[in-house]
Amino acid sequence: MNKLTGLLSEYKKGWSLAQEFYTAPEVLQSEARFIWNRNWLFAGFSCEIPEAGDYFIYNVFTNSAIVIRDDDGSIYAHHNTCRHRGSVICVEERGNEPNLKCPYHHWVYEKNGNLRNARMMPETFDKTQFGLHPVHVQLLEGAIFISFANDPPDFSREMSDLAPYLAPYELNNAKVAFRDRYELDANWKLIGENFRECYHCGPAHIEYCQAVIGANLVEEREEVFIDNMQLWKDRGLAAATIEQVKGSCHFVTRYPLRPGFKSYSLDGKPVAPPMGRHRTYDSGVVGMINYPNFWMDAVTDYMWVMRITPLEPAKSVVDLTWLVQGKAEEGKDYDVESFFND
Amino acid sequence: MNKLTGLLSEYKKGWSLAQEFYTAPEVLQSEARFIWNRNWLFAGFSCEIPEAGDYFIYNVFTNSAIVIRDDDGSIYAHHNTCRHRGSVICVEERGNEPNLKCPYHHWVYEKNGNLRNARMMPETFDKTQFGLHPVHVQLLEGAIFISFANDPPDFSREMSDLAPYLAPYELNNAKVAFRDRYELDANWKLIGENFRECYHCGPAHIEYCQAVIGANLVEEREEVFIDNMQLWKDRGLAAATIEQVKGSCHFVTRYPLRPGFKSYSLDGKPVAPPMGRHRTYDSGVVGMINYPNFWMDAVTDYMWVMRITPLEPAKSVVDLTWLVQGKAEEGKDYDVESFFND
Amino acid sequence: MNKLTGLLSEYKKGWSLAQEFYTAPEVLQSEARFIWNRNWLFAGFSCEIPEAGDYFIYNVFTNSAIVIRDDDGSIYAHHNTCRHRGSVICVEERGNEPNLKCPYHHWVYEKNGNLRNARMMPETFDKTQFGLHPVHVQLLEGAIFISFANDPPDFSREMSDLAPYLAPYELNNAKVAFRDRYELDANWKLIGENFRECYHCGPAHIEYCQAVIGANLVEEREEVFIDNMQLWKDRGLAAATIEQVKGSCHFVTRYPLRPGFKSYSLDGKPVAPPMGRHRTYDSGVVGMINYPNFWMDAVTDYMWVMRITPLEPAKSVVDLTWLVQGKAEEGKDYDVESFFND
Repeated sequence: MNKLTGLLSEYKKGWSLAQEFYTAPEVLQSEARFIWNRNWLFAGFSCEIPEAGDYFIYNVFTNSAIVIRDDDGSIYAHHNTCRHRGSVICVEERGNEPNLKCPYHHWVYEKNGNLRNARMMPETFDKTQFGLHPVHVQLLEGAIFISFANDPPDFSREMSDLAPYLAPYELNNAKVAFRDRYELDANWKLIGENFRECYHCGPAHIEYCQAVIGANLVEEREEVFIDNMQLWKDRGLAAATIEQVKGSCHFVTRYPLRPGFKSYSLDGKPVAPPMGRHRTYDSGVVGMINYPNFWMDAVTDYMWVMRITPLEPAKSVVDLTWLVQGKAEEGKDYDVESFFND
Repeated sequence: MNKLTGLLSEYKKGWSLAQEFYTAPEVLQSEARFIWNRNWLFAGFSCEIPEAGDYFIYNVFTNSAIVIRDDDGSIYAHHNTCRHRGSVICVEERGNEPNLKCPYHHWVYEKNGNLRNARMMPETFDKTQFGLHPVHVQLLEGAIFISFANDPPDFSREMSDLAPYLAPYELNNAKVAFRDRYELDANWKLIGENFRECYHCGPAHIEYCQAVIGANLVEEREEVFIDNMQLWKDRGLAAATIEQVKGSCHFVTRYPLRPGFKSYSLDGKPVAPPMGRHRTYDSGVVGMINYPNFWMDAVTDYMWVMRITPLEPAKSVVDLTWLVQGKAEEGKDYDVESFFND
Repeated sequence: MNKLTGLLSEYKKGWSLAQEFYTAPEVLQSEARFIWNRNWLFAGFSCEIPEAGDYFIYNVFTNSAIVIRDDDGSIYAHHNTCRHRGSVICVEERGNEPNLKCPYHHWVYEKNGNLRNARMMPETFDKTQFGLHPVHVQLLEGAIFISFANDPPDFSREMSDLAPYLAPYELNNAKVAFRDRYELDANWKLIGENFRECYHCGPAHIEYCQAVIGANLVEEREEVFIDNMQLWKDRGLAAATIEQVKGSCHFVTRYPLRPGFKSYSLDGKPVAPPMGRHRTYDSGVVGMINYPNFWMDAVTDYMWVMRITPLEPAKSVVDLTWLVQGKAEEGKDYDVESFFND
């Protein structure tokens, strides 16, 4: 903590963070302890594990969580570590298992984490004491958040603030149309900082500026904004920006696309059917963040999410997920290849 | 030492070691100091270097040993480091050299480590002071053990306990039929722990359990055991298990194969001629360990050895050596490819 | 510093440095602080950036310097770090830019480092305060030296000692005929130590010993030396060896080639036209060092330079540059491929 305390004491408001915030192993260790192993982290979507036994893994530093759906439809998260000898239980990142069987000595756990069978253990062995260590779960309108903390922070404000923005997309009925993974030689905070400013959008993202008025920070967009706010209000869509404030980790806003644009696409045309209970392509863009690892943008016809995970001070993984309406058919209703080749 | 002392003080008897025993660099440093740079380590077999000048290298952390046979047949080990500028002397892992010539400035050492020639050094230079630093050697019935310690621990008990088990194989006349090297992403102790328990054999090694009664920990094997003990006794084969005790590093046992099995092989048939002074295929299995790095199993017709060497907290090298009778001919008396493809 | 102080206190005069001087991260950190981030470092040659806007990058630990030629012909060096968000400005190692434009948010700097344009910054923003951080530059007869120190050490003695040896080569009119880069698994000091002794030349560099009397440390070369000294004196060529002394970092000498040899080449024949104001192939060899990173040898027809840069305790980069007369034409006056294949 001395390193971090020292660096923080030298921080000048309005200036960039010092280099060591992005490069010092001690800083990342403090962040692991005070942020990543404590806060709520976005893990994935309920629609990624629709059937009983469907699971996926999320690894964060030395923690590995199994997120799995039980027979009654509920979703659990467990430490992916056998209570016997510490072996990894699920080796594959995604799959379906009727039970969680450790590959090493074949201890078998229920989907809810209870130890079902520990072969050859003595009579005195109390199986109820050796269930998988639980990881906390919160379901936010189809988005799954987990916490590795023993006593996680309150998440009720995030729930109430963010749910109205997510609900119209009916994510439980969405589907993952495309996934990609990027390993970046960058500190995780740098990726976040980059997303929080559009000063670079003008020079770097010409297409984005074509779809969004004011993304270049030069144009005025007030008039279009006011028109849209009224429309969204009429449709019952949440639209009031919720700023991140001291003590909170989330931010959400809704902003309009440029007139004539119905989606984030090169020509402004939709690329998929409307999601959830949307019927028309005029819901604008929902931009949502939940620090430290959840970055989302949604237009009427698709949602993309970046899940950021640090590996080293200057190495991070970004998992991109592209969601569309659950009944949309690839090749007919949307076309991943042409979209991601654009 | 603080890290290790702290971890040891938290150890609970009957439980696994804490994660950091397998991952912390400080623990590996302590192990290097108190185990790997001090204890007797298995290096290889005398039959690997049958001719004068034959040598091999064994690298353990920052130490590198040259194990070489001298003209009179004796075996020496030296630090593979020139006394002049510290250059590596033998670059190739195995070879034959009439003398040990440093490739950098051409200082020349005898096979026994004496400095023969240090070109252009002044008259006052005393060559007798600059022989290669010696590494201690113990020959155990054809197995070569070395110690990097200045004052190695006593090895006489290992010699007397293990020799009776090795002697019948007459390893000086054996030959290496196959060698392989595996780099595992595992702490060295984990590899050893895995070898010391057969709780995983039932689920993981079906073929092994077919050859060995009781390897699955379920079957009784007492009757077969008693019959075999008598047979081995009659043949003059050592059979009394020697347990590892406090202060010792070795373990040896002899146990029977399942009736009808003459060797560790899928169908139970021998895969090579009997080794050494064995005449019949009923000597069972000799299992031998000498911590920290020597793991051996021998049936009548072959012996395999694993030499384990740590590289990093979670990275180790396993060198597998498969020995058969020295006069056996590949393709006629044994077939490496079909055996290792099984 | 404790590590280094401890190691220095154990140093025995006339012996090699202890292993940790070459392997301990703490030692390299001290060297970075007290040598590499303070001393004058060879960066490259003025003839590598002949036109306005020509630049190259030199990276040393966390420092990156842009060395660039301005419109008036003068040469500047700047930290390759945008004053806005710290982005790297020049990503390519070599190129030509009319201005230095940060690729991230498009701040634009003049070639002299002044901030020309910081788009959308408020009226109160004082551009004069945000020029690129300068790196010190010294031009030594066409060789460019830089220092990352705020207050670099005096360089006047190096200038006056070395200039007479370099001047006859007229390096401003030379050209780079060949460049190569080697990443060596060696501490940077080891590379330097190797260059400072010819005890290894006899065994390792037979061709070199064929071209240079006495390189094998066995032959006498006094007579040839005396003849040549007179010749060089007559031609006005500096010839008195300047030894490195306490407090200095440089060394230069001129020594003769073997009679019949006009160049460092296998057959002794020249491989390129004479450089600079040389007319005949009898200027011998100029050997020059400026610690920590500049190693040069020049014969009449070519000059080669090694620029050494540490990456890790046991990893360094060597950049080889081979210079010939600027008007020489490849394939006609010299032949890189046949020369470097020899």
